[in-house]
Amino acid sequence: MKTAIRVNRDIQSEKKQRATAFREKLTRQGTLILNLVSSPGTGKTSLLEATARELGNRLRLGVLVGDLATDRDAQRLAPFVPVRQLTTGGACHLEISLVEQGWQELGEPELDILFIENVGNLVCPASHDLGEHIRASLLSTTEGDDKPGKYPKMFRTSQVMLLTKMDLLPHLPFCVEDAIEDARLIQPDLDIFTTSAISGEGIPQWCEYLEQQRQKLVANVRASENATD
Amino acid sequence: MKTAIRVNRDIQSEKKQRATAFREKLTRQGTLILNLVSSPGTGKTSLLEATARELGNRLRLGVLVGDLATDRDAQRLAPFVPVRQLTTGGACHLEISLVEQGWQELGEPELDILFIENVGNLVCPASHDLGEHIRASLLSTTEGDDKPGKYPKMFRTSQVMLLTKMDLLPHLPFCVEDAIEDARLIQPDLDIFTTSAISGEGIPQWCEYLEQQRQKLVANVRASENATD
Repeated sequence: MKTAIRVNRDIQSEKKQRATAFREKLTRQGTLILNLVSSPGTGKTSLLEATARELGNRLRLGVLVGDLATDRDAQRLAPFVPVRQLTTGGACHLEISLVEQGWQELGEPELDILFIENVGNLVCPASHDLGEHIRASLLSTTEGDDKPGKYPKMFRTSQVMLLTKMDLLPHLPFCVEDAIEDARLIQPDLDIFTTSAISGEGIPQWCEYLEQQRQKLVANVRASENATD
Repeated sequence: MKTAIRVNRDIQSEKKQRATAFREKLTRQGTLILNLVSSPGTGKTSLLEATARELGNRLRLGVLVGDLATDRDAQRLAPFVPVRQLTTGGACHLEISLVEQGWQELGEPELDILFIENVGNLVCPASHDLGEHIRASLLSTTEGDDKPGKYPKMFRTSQVMLLTKMDLLPHLPFCVEDAIEDARLIQPDLDIFTTSAISGEGIPQWCEYLEQQRQKLVANVRASENATD
């Protein structure tokens, strides 16, 4: 039994090191990495389509998109942005090894922002560092305003929460204030955006946030280079 | 490494035996067990509320409801049906040991139908037998008609699929035929119901199905008792 626990601990520690190395390598290139996490069907791919339409003409974007099976999401995104499908073959979350592989298949380009769309799962991806700078949790208005408290680790480990499908709000018993309050009880520092990929609500604000975060990353890299000169 | 694999195999085998024993015990009592699985926010609890309202006056029902944290779902269901909350403390699926414990806390009643509402997760619960007779996958119209192919194990291991939130169909780019075709490519024998807990669509048909499945279970128990007399 002790052997089983030790083997598992060694594997987790190696994954953490690889994620840190990946983050550091892309940081030096000025690439901001986002890990998008949510339930299935919350609208991660639709958000990326809308984001690529808004930002694609002024920033260099790339997407790695994870699923258990099929390349449906990569097919949807291919008209808008360079993309590679990561297929887990049944596993419930992405791992850093698959991200590294997708990154190589993408040609290791110099990007401004790399988006990683995780497997649709509000539980397991919370426990896996993919080298991201920002973890963004999506919660759709159709899922109910009680979800942050029921899936606390995902929201606790995120820096951003996007409420999606705001266009459906008139047809749903969803209270935006309750959802935000529930999430902030778990993670008070969350940046929050209310969005709709269909109406376009909140997409400019979200894209402005992304640009600012990328500028901060570049400024930090320059400052640390100057400090070591 | 071999030790790690062997330990894991022994644990899985023990869980499978316990699930089989639980199913056999409740079968002898004439209790049909359902395991409801879906993404977060697909409407498992709402379906159970509607089912309890429809069937509660003629069948003895009980519910075990699983979540990572909070007892929100048990609070919602308590006015309609005897219920116990199973809290996994972060784990991504229910296990048979928690089900057995909840069943004891419920007072081991003689029921016609025991519903187990699993953790909201379209991946991991597919790999865990909870002693159910019927696994029912819920897919909401808000999640998109492409989900069965993207989460194949859940639909392959289910006997029933319920399309939920049919009342929202006019506002969504969801094609019922595509979703059903996608699911039947994976599991041709699926029984399928189109439902809405809000409008009541499909709830009588679903409840009639449940009553029939329960009658078949009881008839099979009687037939096998007669055969061994």
